[in-house]
Amino acid sequence: MAVEYDVVISTVWVLLAAFMVFLMHLGFAMVESGFTRAKNTVNILMKNVVTVIIGVVTYYLVGFALMFGESQGGFAGWSYFALSHASLYDAGIPVMAFWVFQAMFAATCATIVSGAVAERVNFLAYLAFAVVMTALIYPIVGHWVWGSGWLAELGFMDFAGSTVVHSVGAWGGLIFARMLGPRLGKYGPQGQVVSMPGHSMPLATIGVLLLWFGWFGFNGGSTIDGTTAALADIIAATMMGGAAGGLAAMVLTQLRTGKADAGMTLNGILAGLVGVTAGANVLTIWAALLVGVASGLVMAAAAAFIERVLKVDDPVGAISVHGACGVLGTLAVGLFAPEGGLFYGGGWQLLGVQLLGVVVAFLWAAAVAWVALAVIGRLTPLRVSKQVELAGLDVAEHAAVAYSGIALPEMGLAQAASGSHQ
Amino acid sequence: MAVEYDVVISTVWVLLAAFMVFLMHLGFAMVESGFTRAKNTVNILMKNVVTVIIGVVTYYLVGFALMFGESQGGFAGWSYFALSHASLYDAGIPVMAFWVFQAMFAATCATIVSGAVAERVNFLAYLAFAVVMTALIYPIVGHWVWGSGWLAELGFMDFAGSTVVHSVGAWGGLIFARMLGPRLGKYGPQGQVVSMPGHSMPLATIGVLLLWFGWFGFNGGSTIDGTTAALADIIAATMMGGAAGGLAAMVLTQLRTGKADAGMTLNGILAGLVGVTAGANVLTIWAALLVGVASGLVMAAAAAFIERVLKVDDPVGAISVHGACGVLGTLAVGLFAPEGGLFYGGGWQLLGVQLLGVVVAFLWAAAVAWVALAVIGRLTPLRVSKQVELAGLDVAEHAAVAYSGIALPEMGLAQAASGSHQ
Amino acid sequence: MAVEYDVVISTVWVLLAAFMVFLMHLGFAMVESGFTRAKNTVNILMKNVVTVIIGVVTYYLVGFALMFGESQGGFAGWSYFALSHASLYDAGIPVMAFWVFQAMFAATCATIVSGAVAERVNFLAYLAFAVVMTALIYPIVGHWVWGSGWLAELGFMDFAGSTVVHSVGAWGGLIFARMLGPRLGKYGPQGQVVSMPGHSMPLATIGVLLLWFGWFGFNGGSTIDGTTAALADIIAATMMGGAAGGLAAMVLTQLRTGKADAGMTLNGILAGLVGVTAGANVLTIWAALLVGVASGLVMAAAAAFIERVLKVDDPVGAISVHGACGVLGTLAVGLFAPEGGLFYGGGWQLLGVQLLGVVVAFLWAAAVAWVALAVIGRLTPLRVSKQVELAGLDVAEHAAVAYSGIALPEMGLAQAASGSHQ
Repeated sequence: MAVEYDVVISTVWVLLAAFMVFLMHLGFAMVESGFTRAKNTVNILMKNVVTVIIGVVTYYLVGFALMFGESQGGFAGWSYFALSHASLYDAGIPVMAFWVFQAMFAATCATIVSGAVAERVNFLAYLAFAVVMTALIYPIVGHWVWGSGWLAELGFMDFAGSTVVHSVGAWGGLIFARMLGPRLGKYGPQGQVVSMPGHSMPLATIGVLLLWFGWFGFNGGSTIDGTTAALADIIAATMMGGAAGGLAAMVLTQLRTGKADAGMTLNGILAGLVGVTAGANVLTIWAALLVGVASGLVMAAAAAFIERVLKVDDPVGAISVHGACGVLGTLAVGLFAPEGGLFYGGGWQLLGVQLLGVVVAFLWAAAVAWVALAVIGRLTPLRVSKQVELAGLDVAEHAAVAYSGIALPEMGLAQAASGSHQ
Repeated sequence: MAVEYDVVISTVWVLLAAFMVFLMHLGFAMVESGFTRAKNTVNILMKNVVTVIIGVVTYYLVGFALMFGESQGGFAGWSYFALSHASLYDAGIPVMAFWVFQAMFAATCATIVSGAVAERVNFLAYLAFAVVMTALIYPIVGHWVWGSGWLAELGFMDFAGSTVVHSVGAWGGLIFARMLGPRLGKYGPQGQVVSMPGHSMPLATIGVLLLWFGWFGFNGGSTIDGTTAALADIIAATMMGGAAGGLAAMVLTQLRTGKADAGMTLNGILAGLVGVTAGANVLTIWAALLVGVASGLVMAAAAAFIERVLKVDDPVGAISVHGACGVLGTLAVGLFAPEGGLFYGGGWQLLGVQLLGVVVAFLWAAAVAWVALAVIGRLTPLRVSKQVELAGLDVAEHAAVAYSGIALPEMGLAQAASGSHQ
Repeated sequence: MAVEYDVVISTVWVLLAAFMVFLMHLGFAMVESGFTRAKNTVNILMKNVVTVIIGVVTYYLVGFALMFGESQGGFAGWSYFALSHASLYDAGIPVMAFWVFQAMFAATCATIVSGAVAERVNFLAYLAFAVVMTALIYPIVGHWVWGSGWLAELGFMDFAGSTVVHSVGAWGGLIFARMLGPRLGKYGPQGQVVSMPGHSMPLATIGVLLLWFGWFGFNGGSTIDGTTAALADIIAATMMGGAAGGLAAMVLTQLRTGKADAGMTLNGILAGLVGVTAGANVLTIWAALLVGVASGLVMAAAAAFIERVLKVDDPVGAISVHGACGVLGTLAVGLFAPEGGLFYGGGWQLLGVQLLGVVVAFLWAAAVAWVALAVIGRLTPLRVSKQVELAGLDVAEHAAVAYSGIALPEMGLAQAASGSHQ
């Protein structure tokens, strides 16, 4: 039998893209632990690692079925549970390659939550919520948009998931972080914001650059086609979006404070990447530059709004990066899409549909997250005790410290839990 | 001349897979240094880096010849030394692409040793043994299984090397660690085990996730064929194996101690990956889940057995991960292989052959390692002196410290060796 | 329309190579921060991250046009500014894929500078110079060699950029470092060299191994062709070059001091990689071994010369690695090239052309760097104040510390700048 090169090349491409998205989870683990305190590092790392595991297992058992199963009226899929008969699914590549790629996406959506709830969430409660994210919240929105569901029918466009993956993850994080309340000491007696710097800028930098690297697979692989000429444009837009977002955020902090802020620059890169994700297949390189710059600025404004006005404590800025810029990126498609975009004379309809998608994704994610967390909260506390939070989650939840033998003044000499910690 | 796309696509695939296996060496460096103490970090890093170098040079001069040279009665190859005339070797892709991929495998086998002997091995003795591993011990087993040797003739199946790479490396580590004896302070006066926590969980996490990433290349590239439809299944099995192994180990520690142990979860992932390596091309996704879970549990049991019963001190758990789960994975092929597997009605023969391969690989690796180390031990001490071990190998062996300017209470203020260290 | 598989495969290959070169920037960030002190880590990380951003934006607006635009007498290109009409450019793959790959090269050239000027450069002055590097200095040399410019006409060969990328970056760094002067305390009262060890060997190791990984894309992607049989040889030469360079440097330090020096081994790997870059497409594997060994030794000699004789303070050894070995690698082509190489009976002409290219690249880079820095120095100080340098650049330039909450004796307890630092 002759080899079908289109299928072969696309399979290799999507698998490689899936590996790169896999590596984004190392990116998340690094950026989230870098931006938080050393006493909670093991806990953060565990959350990110186990989210991959949960994503794989849950998306195998349930998530894929709800997302890509036979559509039940456009709302949800319902077949291929545990990938049974999944060989019938036609993605143009072997279904297992498609599944691997999609499973990494599901885990990405869930792991965004972990940053927003860092440094005070109960580990088991987080794991339970990660199951809900990958088994239910994400796959349903995914079905609407990518599983021939009702939003796709309306013409909603979200190429690689500014809404489907990033905003949905951020909304889960927003609800969870709000229910948890802020970390001890985050707000002073008069409600003033207290800065709680992360413990390792090298880890944060590793994280952001690995995320950028993985994003080329995230956006590039979303073609599910390694033979299309669009690949190069998608990658160029992704490259420019990240650069522009970081540049805008850095210049903003330089102008405001006279100093280039590293944390904001790094989050600006991520913001730009989230921003160009929905439209990576339609943005020209200069449009990607504009969207990236806007994302960097919107991220900064949203972070301040969330922290100061909403008083939601998001230790790593996950909600401003993935939520706010996810919205921005999705709406940008309504402006920049050559077919239907406002700037190309397509009128307001596509923009309206994009807005609708943004809103319903928020409503669905927030509502289900709220219900799920209410249920989970009955079974196990959502938040650790005050003593555990002060001592650090690592010792209490994992009987370990991140840096054994290195002096961490907050904790005394770091050493494995020996009962003398509390 | 028309391009032969099969060859072209397979070449690109195998090269990319080789790059990913190359990155596993960064993974090993990180996981081994993370799981050990800060005073020995430079030494660990050097061992892992230099093992790549030795692997490349030795496998170029000798290893490839013994493994893929013209077979001498099924026991060893004997041609292509220094890759002379290697262009005659027909792997279906350019021989240099094949060599690069295989050289990374050889180095992987050798670097497994470095974890087992960490924190007390003499650097030069380790280097000498790494030469033996890559020049002799590994290539001979490789010839038996992948070089049309006698085990392949019997029908032994080890797709990507649960036995050939992982167990063989672990057995080398076992013999070496046993000859070295445990680290000072590892066992108390009554023989009780003393916990010696590693100094950096972030490094260990980087390591394990990079290893998982690289494993997609390790298993996927072992097809030496980028056009086969089996690729997707191999990757899916690899993804599920790692997830299942980590999940099993985490749940086990949670049930036993009430706390999810990070080190065990990370090693559980590696255990699952080792477990599915031999059968990545025959395991369905649910079989990969089963093998992964079994690997996570076997790893935990083996680690306890090795530490408490054998009293072999393996600082990073290399023997339980790569040895025990290498055996498990190799035997699992005898159960799950559609052709010949016990569960598919194939009877006991394949399982018997698999068991035979496991045993002879152990005997060969252990015997040659023992002889080689006896010889090396005549030339240079296998173990550093007590003073060096207490002060840390970094200062004594490399005149350096891993974290200059950061307070490491064990060592006093870390600073470059200035003679005041002892 | 039938898919043109040659184009498709080459596009995928070059994009993947570009991703790997992108990751080299994480490598540079890690190796440079690892080899310098903790109080300047945020600054180093920012420089490397922002260099990528500047590279992308500048190379989009200007750099590509000067390098690959229509040649103005062989000296410079002049079209495709902001990639307008760039679709006309024929690289055999979509121009956006070509641009992404080339933009990463431009940023690589610029980021080499950041290591040489570390720990005392003013951040804004560095950024301004990075713009000059990516907009002018690098693209012009690039045009001469890769843009059908005058050096290409003469027969100068530099396959992946030993001169174009590495030496040019190093010469920029040399001029800048010389104008800055050494770090405070680098030379004692009698001019003796004071060792200033870097703060993290794990970061340095991450960096070097990521650079090696990325180098496979750097050299492999420089084919701009995923279908050529030369790929495998190029990768094999790259693998061997890195290994040989590291081996030579390690053995040298072992013989000289009795201890295997980790920093020199790591830089030896980079030296070997730089060395084989110009001739990766013509070096046989044994020639790569020779060039690698020579590079490791030359790097060590050059580092001593630069530090002790020139008294130029290059904290990470960027000039010896990228400059000296860039020269060596470029000249090696004149020896080893099957067509025209001295060792293949091609006589002295090619070697002469290679030498000419080396010299003019130095003259151009040094002269423009000198002028540019003189101008920049009028607008903003090139160097931070003595107080800032003593306190560390992180606090003064970025109002941050790299390791908040971890004891860094040089700085007192690391914490976010609060005004109490000076």
